[in-house]
Amino acid sequence: MTAVMPEGVAIARDLVGPAIEAAIARLTPDVRVVAAYHLGLADADGNPTRSGSGKALRPALALLSARAAGSPPERGVTAAVAVELVHNFSLLHDDIMDGDTERRHRPTAWTVFGVGGAILAGDALLALAQELLLESEMPHSAWAARCLSTAVQRLIGGQGSDLAFEKRDDVTLSECLDMAGDKTAALMACACSIGAMHLGAPPALAMGLAGFGNHVGLAFQLTDDLLGIWGAPEVTGKPVRADLRARKKSLPVVAALSSGTAEGDQLRAMLNDPEPLSENDLIRAAELVTMAGGRKWAEDEADAQLAAANASLADVDIPVDVHAELTAIAEFITARQW
Amino acid sequence: MTAVMPEGVAIARDLVGPAIEAAIARLTPDVRVVAAYHLGLADADGNPTRSGSGKALRPALALLSARAAGSPPERGVTAAVAVELVHNFSLLHDDIMDGDTERRHRPTAWTVFGVGGAILAGDALLALAQELLLESEMPHSAWAARCLSTAVQRLIGGQGSDLAFEKRDDVTLSECLDMAGDKTAALMACACSIGAMHLGAPPALAMGLAGFGNHVGLAFQLTDDLLGIWGAPEVTGKPVRADLRARKKSLPVVAALSSGTAEGDQLRAMLNDPEPLSENDLIRAAELVTMAGGRKWAEDEADAQLAAANASLADVDIPVDVHAELTAIAEFITARQW
Repeated sequence: MTAVMPEGVAIARDLVGPAIEAAIARLTPDVRVVAAYHLGLADADGNPTRSGSGKALRPALALLSARAAGSPPERGVTAAVAVELVHNFSLLHDDIMDGDTERRHRPTAWTVFGVGGAILAGDALLALAQELLLESEMPHSAWAARCLSTAVQRLIGGQGSDLAFEKRDDVTLSECLDMAGDKTAALMACACSIGAMHLGAPPALAMGLAGFGNHVGLAFQLTDDLLGIWGAPEVTGKPVRADLRARKKSLPVVAALSSGTAEGDQLRAMLNDPEPLSENDLIRAAELVTMAGGRKWAEDEADAQLAAANASLADVDIPVDVHAELTAIAEFITARQW
Repeated sequence: MTAVMPEGVAIARDLVGPAIEAAIARLTPDVRVVAAYHLGLADADGNPTRSGSGKALRPALALLSARAAGSPPERGVTAAVAVELVHNFSLLHDDIMDGDTERRHRPTAWTVFGVGGAILAGDALLALAQELLLESEMPHSAWAARCLSTAVQRLIGGQGSDLAFEKRDDVTLSECLDMAGDKTAALMACACSIGAMHLGAPPALAMGLAGFGNHVGLAFQLTDDLLGIWGAPEVTGKPVRADLRARKKSLPVVAALSSGTAEGDQLRAMLNDPEPLSENDLIRAAELVTMAGGRKWAEDEADAQLAAANASLADVDIPVDVHAELTAIAEFITARQW
């Protein structure tokens, strides 16, 4: 199945891209070069490029959030930039912590500029996100900044759990879902609601949008975890079965491990074995996840979260076209490309 | 010469300490244990201790800042906590970047919990600082949060310059002073003004206090750099001539290198030599800094900055006891213990 990117995502990139560049230009040169490289705005020497910027999903959601409150998308740009900067702050730092050497088909920032440069650039993006919100001439900028701070704390907590899980082999599915909620869904919920909050929308609207974002975030993480095992390299940009190779305790894997089945136990033995996993081992591990019910559970749960996301929008009063675009983005980012 | 810690610093510790503990308690367990260890509130296993907390200079300045605006010190506690959290965010991250293995006579957090844990704990403290300000029921919390954000950006820029300077041997004294202004003075200026800003003090008062803090911060950095060469280990907690051993481009060293003297050139040759420096080399290097005028320049500049700090307070209308305590702290942290 091929997923077609909704038009709103490309529009968001056009509207938010220049604002991100303007924000980055405020950083001191040593920090700016790292941030610009990471964001795909420049190569390692600082020469402008358009190589590897992200998909701008969160900015698209933030602009829709402003439109949900009855404003033109332009009024959501600051919130969209703030969310995208926070997302990239977390990518910069996570890549160091996880030892990841490639992102968006390019070497990660820490491999190019060193750990120190990447830590600093992440710090700068986080501080900049708050600065932009606080200095914006919007009626509820402090409120939007608090919404973002809360998401940042959950994001950090989720990454902390993720790091801790690596050292444990008794992680429960419920812990794993909580972690995904913190690490992925919290910022999605923020993206979907911050534009409206920034404009002083009624709490019921902001909460409906946040609920939508939270469920979409979980559906997105489940989809990402399924892609990490069964996604084709040309879709994921990573080698096939990359998450199994890294013995990552992703949601389908933890569902399989906690299934109480013989296949789940075989999978546990395989992942606990310190020997490197061969290609055949990886194929077998993926089969075991399926046979232990981990794949079906994750697919069903993704469907359920997507349904819950759409249900969250049922009672909120937003323009019909905004509703349709939110739904289109949710479907796009949870499309089954395996 | 022995410097006696002003009473206000101990009082600040008593008032702000519990508020910092309450703030840290909000973090998720995996992140909290690292933050508590770093702050000297717990050992590596999370058991409460009182071993190695900092001197609470910035909190003391923030409480005085609230008192300068005519309020009781209790009204400055949130601002004091926010500044201290930001200071510790930067220490957690700087220790990783600089590869420092010891702080406050204990192993640094990253050596105990890994780089990932220390990055996350730093991130959490930065986000928490902003959260506390934004959720405080003060008339100007968004304004205080902006003041802090600006200081954070300068701090990050200063650390970026510091990292970049390590790879250069043509750093000018003016660049070096700018770096110290960003890395040290900006947060001191924020500490001295944020309490008053948070309470809605007039801009002239806030600016006078910020000017005081900025000059004190520079005087403090100059003093710290002098201690890094000539301070006794029992005063600095570091080996004698530690900064020379690390070939750090501190202010007295850069002043010597850019003096145009023969001794400055000898020093440059010594510091550029890739061979390890012997104890005799280090003694000789310290002599060369003195002979090239670097020591005298730094001492004179520290005096000038201290005088400028006091001059900044001359025209602002603050209670006499607050004025005296600010001056006492400035003298305490720039005392010549060599």
